[in-house]
Amino acid sequence: MTQPALARAEALDAADPLAAYRDRFVIADPETVYLDGNSLGRLPVATRERLRVAIDVEWGADLIDGWTRWIELGRQAGDVLAGLVGAGPGEVILSDSTSVNLYKLASAALAARPGRRVIVTDDDNFPTDRYVLAGLGPVRLVHSDVDAGVDTDAVVHALDDDVALVSLSHVAYRSGAVCDLPGITAAVHEAGALVLWDLCHSAGAVPVGLAAAGVDLAVGCTYKHLNAGPGAPAFLYVRRDLQPVLRQPIQGWFGQSDQFGMGTGYAPVDTIERFLVGTPPVLGGYAVLEGARLSAEAGIGAIARKGRALGAYLIELHDAWLAPLGFRLASPREDARRGAHVTLHHPDAWRICQALKAARVIPDHRVPDRLRLGLAPLYTRFVDVHIAMSRLRALVQAGRHREFPAERARVT
Amino acid sequence: MTQPALARAEALDAADPLAAYRDRFVIADPETVYLDGNSLGRLPVATRERLRVAIDVEWGADLIDGWTRWIELGRQAGDVLAGLVGAGPGEVILSDSTSVNLYKLASAALAARPGRRVIVTDDDNFPTDRYVLAGLGPVRLVHSDVDAGVDTDAVVHALDDDVALVSLSHVAYRSGAVCDLPGITAAVHEAGALVLWDLCHSAGAVPVGLAAAGVDLAVGCTYKHLNAGPGAPAFLYVRRDLQPVLRQPIQGWFGQSDQFGMGTGYAPVDTIERFLVGTPPVLGGYAVLEGARLSAEAGIGAIARKGRALGAYLIELHDAWLAPLGFRLASPREDARRGAHVTLHHPDAWRICQALKAARVIPDHRVPDRLRLGLAPLYTRFVDVHIAMSRLRALVQAGRHREFPAERARVT
Repeated sequence: MTQPALARAEALDAADPLAAYRDRFVIADPETVYLDGNSLGRLPVATRERLRVAIDVEWGADLIDGWTRWIELGRQAGDVLAGLVGAGPGEVILSDSTSVNLYKLASAALAARPGRRVIVTDDDNFPTDRYVLAGLGPVRLVHSDVDAGVDTDAVVHALDDDVALVSLSHVAYRSGAVCDLPGITAAVHEAGALVLWDLCHSAGAVPVGLAAAGVDLAVGCTYKHLNAGPGAPAFLYVRRDLQPVLRQPIQGWFGQSDQFGMGTGYAPVDTIERFLVGTPPVLGGYAVLEGARLSAEAGIGAIARKGRALGAYLIELHDAWLAPLGFRLASPREDARRGAHVTLHHPDAWRICQALKAARVIPDHRVPDRLRLGLAPLYTRFVDVHIAMSRLRALVQAGRHREFPAERARVT
Repeated sequence: MTQPALARAEALDAADPLAAYRDRFVIADPETVYLDGNSLGRLPVATRERLRVAIDVEWGADLIDGWTRWIELGRQAGDVLAGLVGAGPGEVILSDSTSVNLYKLASAALAARPGRRVIVTDDDNFPTDRYVLAGLGPVRLVHSDVDAGVDTDAVVHALDDDVALVSLSHVAYRSGAVCDLPGITAAVHEAGALVLWDLCHSAGAVPVGLAAAGVDLAVGCTYKHLNAGPGAPAFLYVRRDLQPVLRQPIQGWFGQSDQFGMGTGYAPVDTIERFLVGTPPVLGGYAVLEGARLSAEAGIGAIARKGRALGAYLIELHDAWLAPLGFRLASPREDARRGAHVTLHHPDAWRICQALKAARVIPDHRVPDRLRLGLAPLYTRFVDVHIAMSRLRALVQAGRHREFPAERARVT
């Protein structure tokens, strides 16, 4: 293979149907290459404007009357999100954080399978998922390869009559490996259990196809590929026929029929609002609405295609430039098995991560010894990947990472 | 009594030590009298500016690095709130919604009293409190008078060896009646149970004195008298010595020791962060910080004094102008027994509420047949009370409320 040149990246950008979407985001410092959009997405220009109106006019002037509009936000944004994850209108709503939603839906699933107690998840699932599930019942841990992701056969093997719920991440947070969502969902249903998918790293990055696979439950966050800002509200999905049947344990007033009747007993509605709890955050809700609309406008098919092309290009540069320097690809090589981030292993990953930031490329560090490179398709250019990989190669070749501390501070 | 004149209101404003705080808020429409600050507080000018920086600079430019600052927000705002509710630093933190916090702390309390199962609350407690508690165990309901509030003796009477937890609102959402927090807390402790106070209508309105009374647990919202905006994150309080002892059921990664170690088992920290769950909302967090600082600067003593003076003045006008028109005071008459809102009963309350809004006074309607008038001390003037009561008297005298629908639409 000949060494890729910048001209090739420029040609890829010129042919990119999503290239113009970069201008829809605030790019405060064009010299810095931001490869952490899968941790915190960039600020969309429309969101900045929307929040200004929400703060200055709706809160500042409309005051309490704002609620006539705000009350609809969670459902409105949910319907846009539903389109992105392959669900129907009224099946997705904004609510709480991903962790709280996991708790609510996993609890509801356990209650819906009396006589079964076991929850199946994998030992490399995102920590909050493992912690929340462990608080709810006996967990059967399937072993997952940190780079290759969840093995479908291993999950199928773990299923029996004791299993009430299987909960997995669709796209692995470390490696970006994509799970076999339709295959596992079918197997779980055959075993008489319910499935709950965590879509944090897939919503807005790859198609999910919830309805097509007949998925029961899902949760996900909005501040990664959906670009809704730090701590924006999460979403949850409950298949329509399950909505009137499931009972979630946190019986808050936003799930109540005739909410302002202030009645005596809790009588939840039969719709997706049944899974709401308290007063929803309005600013975050608007940010999700704008962010999700931007992704919906671009189309999840086009977003996923570009994400995979960026990944393939990054892997090509890795093979040519970085493999000789001691790096190893820690993500699936096959495009269809990857989300929109690529992870590289290097024994000095923590030092390299710090040096790379100093060189104005923003990656993420993940234990053990991994550099996670997010390729948010709406604003990452092929040229960005080229520049980032050039800087990465140059600093490791020059040994500049050795100037940085080898140990990560305990709390970061 | 002579009929109060506007000059008297103006004199009261002239003598008000907090008068200048009104300029610290956005007053978009000076002709409208806003008496719903106990539902949604006004936008502080400092918050508008702070949110602009948080959005444009911190999210827009700092991106992921913003978290080095954002991660501290919940505790920082919590420490300011602690000063307002009479708690110590490290005893209060922002987290989730009031309903979710109620669930977490009530669950933790029940688990800490094995062998006891009963939860005591009152039949006029705010609906979400009653619903959440009813989802957790058998509830023993004490009868409360909708106007006079919770009777201490009735609560004491309900205590026995089966009671694990007593959960009440400090200030009643309908009448503004203040509960005997120290007396009830002492009685609950004597009975071997834990107490959980809902401070939604008292935080930022009246002193609470959590530490002085030895309160175990408390929750509260920030969008009322703390002026943190629609759906801003709620807060929770756990007495310091209980923090390492209690276990809350939603085992999210923000409660975990060495959070980014991504370890296998859930091992929560021993501090107030133990009661956190998922990624906290940053914009809302800043709004709480600014709102709480404004209240702290004014001082909760001065705020409460003004709130009660405004209430006394409103009641004086009610007696002179409205009682002859069929109104009845539906709040405690004694200043020390009232929070910062006053409620009036009238058989035509719903129609009157609509007519009053048309006359550019914003009240709140509460079933059954009540007009709730919020007197947020930081920006409500005595003149506002005078104008609102004049308009109210005029419209009822003229029968203008009869032009409005008698029935409230089912969902509002």
